[in-house]
Amino acid sequence: MYRPRQLVINSTRLMDTLHKTCVWGAAHRYGPGPTQTGMARLTLSDDDKKARDWFGDEMSSLGCDIKVDTMGNMFAVRPGEKTGAPTAIGSHLDTQPTGGRYDGILGVHAAVEAMRTIHESGYKTQYPIAAVNWTNEEGARFPKSLHGSSVWSGDFTVENAHALTDVADSSITAGAELERIGYKGTLECSAKANPLAAHFELHIEQGPILENNKQTIGIVNGGQAYKWFNVRVHGRDSHAGTTPMNLRADPLLLSARLMVAANAVAIKHGGCATTGIMSLKPGSINTIPNLIDYTLDIRHPDDAALAAMEADIRAAAAALVAEESRYKCTIELDKIFDYAATKFHPDCIGAVRTAAEATVGADMAREIVSGAGHDSCATSKHCPTSMVFIPCEEGLSHNPREYATPEDCALGAQVVMDAALLFDSRRQK
Amino acid sequence: MYRPRQLVINSTRLMDTLHKTCVWGAAHRYGPGPTQTGMARLTLSDDDKKARDWFGDEMSSLGCDIKVDTMGNMFAVRPGEKTGAPTAIGSHLDTQPTGGRYDGILGVHAAVEAMRTIHESGYKTQYPIAAVNWTNEEGARFPKSLHGSSVWSGDFTVENAHALTDVADSSITAGAELERIGYKGTLECSAKANPLAAHFELHIEQGPILENNKQTIGIVNGGQAYKWFNVRVHGRDSHAGTTPMNLRADPLLLSARLMVAANAVAIKHGGCATTGIMSLKPGSINTIPNLIDYTLDIRHPDDAALAAMEADIRAAAAALVAEESRYKCTIELDKIFDYAATKFHPDCIGAVRTAAEATVGADMAREIVSGAGHDSCATSKHCPTSMVFIPCEEGLSHNPREYATPEDCALGAQVVMDAALLFDSRRQK
Repeated sequence: MYRPRQLVINSTRLMDTLHKTCVWGAAHRYGPGPTQTGMARLTLSDDDKKARDWFGDEMSSLGCDIKVDTMGNMFAVRPGEKTGAPTAIGSHLDTQPTGGRYDGILGVHAAVEAMRTIHESGYKTQYPIAAVNWTNEEGARFPKSLHGSSVWSGDFTVENAHALTDVADSSITAGAELERIGYKGTLECSAKANPLAAHFELHIEQGPILENNKQTIGIVNGGQAYKWFNVRVHGRDSHAGTTPMNLRADPLLLSARLMVAANAVAIKHGGCATTGIMSLKPGSINTIPNLIDYTLDIRHPDDAALAAMEADIRAAAAALVAEESRYKCTIELDKIFDYAATKFHPDCIGAVRTAAEATVGADMAREIVSGAGHDSCATSKHCPTSMVFIPCEEGLSHNPREYATPEDCALGAQVVMDAALLFDSRRQK
Repeated sequence: MYRPRQLVINSTRLMDTLHKTCVWGAAHRYGPGPTQTGMARLTLSDDDKKARDWFGDEMSSLGCDIKVDTMGNMFAVRPGEKTGAPTAIGSHLDTQPTGGRYDGILGVHAAVEAMRTIHESGYKTQYPIAAVNWTNEEGARFPKSLHGSSVWSGDFTVENAHALTDVADSSITAGAELERIGYKGTLECSAKANPLAAHFELHIEQGPILENNKQTIGIVNGGQAYKWFNVRVHGRDSHAGTTPMNLRADPLLLSARLMVAANAVAIKHGGCATTGIMSLKPGSINTIPNLIDYTLDIRHPDDAALAAMEADIRAAAAALVAEESRYKCTIELDKIFDYAATKFHPDCIGAVRTAAEATVGADMAREIVSGAGHDSCATSKHCPTSMVFIPCEEGLSHNPREYATPEDCALGAQVVMDAALLFDSRRQK
């Protein structure tokens, strides 16, 4: 049976490797230091390809077999003493357009460092162990978060996933970009064709709870429910100078009112509501727009409370349209994504707890619900899953200044490796 | 003294001529009928030259002297019993790239029809009377609206006006195009060198007020004051799922609140407030934006009321920033354009009122403030001016489907001719 801290990761190597590979996609410099930039490593870009190539080469050199599925998800599998589905440590190498060096990237590097540590120690796992790089977790370039892992989990068809188009250029599909960079693999992308025995993931918290409680490890027991909407508001374009206020059908004003209403709904229920993308047509300084398209992201740890938020926002939209009915505006809320709250597996949560208490002590760790979606939320539908969180400065993420201390990164990497090896050594089949 | 309706225009000839000459620049067909197209008669194009040639030939045949100034503005002057500056009826023959058959074109055709009616009746005006075609009112090809009339009024130098380049090809200047089509005249373009005694203009309303009130003639008493702003709102981009509502600096929420506030300010003061262009950065569905840029167009018939609107909006912005101070958002309002209100001349307004009441009755006419800019706003700085508005369907303009009924066009042409002849007959010098 594996004992926590039986193997010890090399924290210097972990951080050196992470920062070295962040040259691919480095952007948004905020200070003079060599690592004081954020990242813009959009999925399936040339920079993403370079990071993928590095990951594959590095894992091959450690005796792993590299498998790439039809979504470009990469599985670097190191054999164990027995055959069977691997115990995986995974995350993603893609970032937001104004992202940082830790969200996703740290999790893959923790897997790489675990594999290096296992390889150089000569430790024999009971079953295979894998490092996984999931495609387009962010959903920033192709607008579907957990893009690769949700095809693997069966929540999204590979045909639809390939057909998604670049938010900046609708002539470019995800499928074409997978082919262009050479990562449209032949392995079927599914939990059935390519099962995992478990999935562990190290991630920055992306929120303020650990930092506020001066704790270093979050034992993640599940994820928030969230829903994404495309909101479309139709009005009538007319001249800004000749159309009196009471004879307008101004879809932007209606959109502004609905955003203010959604904000109030989120506060009332203790959830979140966010708009991050918006476009106006026709787009002239002295013309009232005729069409507004914007996104709405709502979240809550509880499924029922999130459903109540959706209902309240739909009611607010209906009330606004009714109130302004003489203007003939319409509002459509098209739900493009609906993700139930995730409950992680007690065996994995237990392994993370044992590993965390061995490395930081019980007082420095706490159970926590993830505020963000993660590939682990997809894997948990098909295999035991848990995550390890570490604090990030001011809870900031999806921002070039996103930061976690090297000490916390090392603690997290040790805990996630220990949890995976504990799980592996406890497996009965 | 001229009596309204002493002369009566030929409404069939008016519309036949208008549609016949719209062959030059017809575009954007929207129905099977011979006149069911819009127009793309960009200023100083070959089509504009054909329309200009026709206008000059037609006016010459009616005994007019054709004068062309250095901006290509065309003045067709018919002698009166006495010499002096002419009383003018004018508008413009150029259109938007996706324009219609009425904006500007109708006004010049009303002047042509008035001249034909006067000519065939043998009526003798007291002073000269002129039909005027102003160059590039639209500012669509060369980006300066009221291009010709604002040089005439002294608001823009002829050198700057000639140097303006085509928005589609910066190698082409307005001056070169005036020469190419043979319309760079030798007459100095100024109100001093080429004065007018008065300026009358028939135009479609481009708004819904007449249609909404089931009235047919607008007696235009001036033009609105307006100001344009670039509004910039800074916040902090962070993750939509993990950043609690009370720890956000969301510039889009602040922008939405300020738009709602600006709308309330416009309604309170009886003015208009419009946002037509908006952009968000970085633009990701699950990232709170960090930067919003949007335009704000505010208008009011009264300069002091518009200044009060600006002050109220600035105060609302300051209050919103203060209220949300813990979020560290900022709002900047950069004023990029400031145009004072235009007051038309009581003698001209009175002439239009007398003419309108004679043709449609007092109940079918109303005083109205122009929401849009017109060549008459430039002429009013140097000579008594007023305009005649007729309804256009659904207030639509700058659109191929722009439409006014033949009946309303004829009423408007009668009123603008009667107003000009009344003004002429009342002149003391």
